[in-house]
Amino acid sequence: MASTIKGRAVIFTQGGPTAVINASWVGVVQGLMLNHDISDIWGAVNGIDGIMKEKFVDLMAQTAKTLEDISYTPASQLRSTRRKPTPEDNVRMLDVFLKHNIHYAFGIGGNDTSESLDIINDAARDREFELRVFHVAKTVDNDLMENDHTPGYGSAARYVANAFRGVNLDNQCFGGLYIGVCMGRHAGFLTAASALGRTTPDDGPHLVYLPEHPFSLDAFARDVAAVHTRLGRCVVAVSEGIEDENRTPILQVLSAGGALEKDSHGNIQLSGTGALADKLVDFLKQRLEKDGVVKKLRARGDTFGYVQRSFPDQSPVDRAEALALGHFAAVQAQSGNIDGSCAIVRVSDNPYKADYRLVPLKNVAGKTRRMPPEFISPEKNDVTEAFLRYGRPLIGELSPIGALDLTKTIAF
Amino acid sequence: MASTIKGRAVIFTQGGPTAVINASWVGVVQGLMLNHDISDIWGAVNGIDGIMKEKFVDLMAQTAKTLEDISYTPASQLRSTRRKPTPEDNVRMLDVFLKHNIHYAFGIGGNDTSESLDIINDAARDREFELRVFHVAKTVDNDLMENDHTPGYGSAARYVANAFRGVNLDNQCFGGLYIGVCMGRHAGFLTAASALGRTTPDDGPHLVYLPEHPFSLDAFARDVAAVHTRLGRCVVAVSEGIEDENRTPILQVLSAGGALEKDSHGNIQLSGTGALADKLVDFLKQRLEKDGVVKKLRARGDTFGYVQRSFPDQSPVDRAEALALGHFAAVQAQSGNIDGSCAIVRVSDNPYKADYRLVPLKNVAGKTRRMPPEFISPEKNDVTEAFLRYGRPLIGELSPIGALDLTKTIAF
Repeated sequence: MASTIKGRAVIFTQGGPTAVINASWVGVVQGLMLNHDISDIWGAVNGIDGIMKEKFVDLMAQTAKTLEDISYTPASQLRSTRRKPTPEDNVRMLDVFLKHNIHYAFGIGGNDTSESLDIINDAARDREFELRVFHVAKTVDNDLMENDHTPGYGSAARYVANAFRGVNLDNQCFGGLYIGVCMGRHAGFLTAASALGRTTPDDGPHLVYLPEHPFSLDAFARDVAAVHTRLGRCVVAVSEGIEDENRTPILQVLSAGGALEKDSHGNIQLSGTGALADKLVDFLKQRLEKDGVVKKLRARGDTFGYVQRSFPDQSPVDRAEALALGHFAAVQAQSGNIDGSCAIVRVSDNPYKADYRLVPLKNVAGKTRRMPPEFISPEKNDVTEAFLRYGRPLIGELSPIGALDLTKTIAF
Repeated sequence: MASTIKGRAVIFTQGGPTAVINASWVGVVQGLMLNHDISDIWGAVNGIDGIMKEKFVDLMAQTAKTLEDISYTPASQLRSTRRKPTPEDNVRMLDVFLKHNIHYAFGIGGNDTSESLDIINDAARDREFELRVFHVAKTVDNDLMENDHTPGYGSAARYVANAFRGVNLDNQCFGGLYIGVCMGRHAGFLTAASALGRTTPDDGPHLVYLPEHPFSLDAFARDVAAVHTRLGRCVVAVSEGIEDENRTPILQVLSAGGALEKDSHGNIQLSGTGALADKLVDFLKQRLEKDGVVKKLRARGDTFGYVQRSFPDQSPVDRAEALALGHFAAVQAQSGNIDGSCAIVRVSDNPYKADYRLVPLKNVAGKTRRMPPEFISPEKNDVTEAFLRYGRPLIGELSPIGALDLTKTIAF
């Protein structure tokens, strides 16, 4: 075990916000307050950009009430960035750490952040600067290795489960088709959460399509036709990241000939556009009407968008774990650990119990976890009971749903 | 005052669901249970379609627990329809009423429903059939005459306020532009609710565009450029129904040359498509980059879609009023009143207090209430303090938002 070292600590948040990312950094602050080796706790504004520009906020000077309120607030009060540090950035950051006697760095983020921290860590070692670097897991995508699940997922999953609960009941009023497109370019966990709000076997989503398997438009049309024929309606959850067997995004397949918006990395823009839901609705309407499955299909599509990750309704479990994981990270620093990624492991399903552990940064850095096969139905169009057991404890209690007793129909 | 009449009662729900439409009809049932003139309470399944097809559920046979749970459940457990009764439909419905000794009809819906009830009422009078007809106001659009506000609006407004609270904090993390498109083809009340979640003067939405006034793309670009220059970011709420000065829908203006989906009435489809948000984002990105306001604009758009009206998170005030208005309707029938529309009036703002009254069906039938001028800013790009005073009591308490104290920035 390394000896302790006196100095300042810096905390920063990276990447897409979640409903509990503030809770994580507040957890780190509360843990660090107990550590007498740490003279100051600074929050970098806008992630590593703030470190390089020396834009810091004094987190010890915030009142306990402010920190408490912030821990309930979605998105990050420390702001964010998607910047990945270049070698020059690393030099700059280490200069800043050296200048201000910063020996502790806590980065809250996804696999990119773990990778960035690992790179800074190596750079510090090369310069023989003693830096203690901790990554605190965060992502609504739930796609980090070594984690049973990540802070942020439970609250986003709660939103998606609730939203599908609502749109399922709405769809029941009129019948027809409803498609909801969920976030998750490579991992289907958030789309899968659409199934967590079902209360009866005929509740939607009746079909769930994940990015883990190739998406076939023909199979999709067949699946929807079968459900619609049986129930007179069909609610579908689709991941924004679905691709065909050649790994061509379905949005691109359906937009043949049209120009598509690309993001700054040259990828087709998936979030912040309603195009995929619209194209899927158009496709199904044409196909099912042409095939005579239904004369005129009432069809609607929504793209759930950014509200999924920022809706102000934390899952209580997610919130508690985010705070605890931040606190755990602070304790690691105090215990003489030098670096690592703070991860959540599951101890038991029923009663649900989780624990925290420190794993090597490299185990998480830059890697993506996807839905395991046992969570996906053999037909690749739904989740399994194993997924429901996995997901239910993470989203907290949902409000009750009452259903009319249709056995009391009047018979003439 | 008319004498009482013994017979059955039928309840039905029409049009787009809300989060509290079930609460309204449960309120009617609970009120009617106390009326000894009423032998049975039947729920028509799928609105007036259920009456014509004699598809009824025995609502007296539902347990108290079932009714209680249903009253918390969004959308309508009685299902719905958008059918407007034809003269033949009226004949058919009166035949059904006559056949089953139904002398009380309660329709929960918007101005179309009030109109339908008024027509049935006239038809009953022509046939000298004693029918007591009550309309119970409902719509997330909040566009009924004679009502201070309508059940369903408070919960949808709560969702929109919360969603904008979240996306505002999300947008704060990275900066750039965010556009959220809200429901409301002719009335801006729901879009206006986006402002109810603001906690500080610089919180988004920074701009709010309503269908009550012509929308100018040039003024829009200027407004956004001004906010973006001041704050480095801009959050915009837009009603799906915005039109230019020639009353051409903006979606159509921006889609010049492209084919647009039309709904069953031949109107351009607004809900259930993400096209307007996408087009507005594309327009602003091009314009602001061309004008040199910003080199590369980070711009995102979401269309909030059906989740707005069905999200399972009732405003407590909305829920209480929906139950009470249904109960009030039942009491009217018991008091010997023959017909009318049950409306909400506001007694006082602070403390908030509402009351209920019966108004003539014709006063509500087929008419649309729009946002009054005093709720819209002189620049037509925001709501006023008067609107905030009006709207705040209707959505219930929102969870607290904590903000970092940036006066504690480290100065070097």
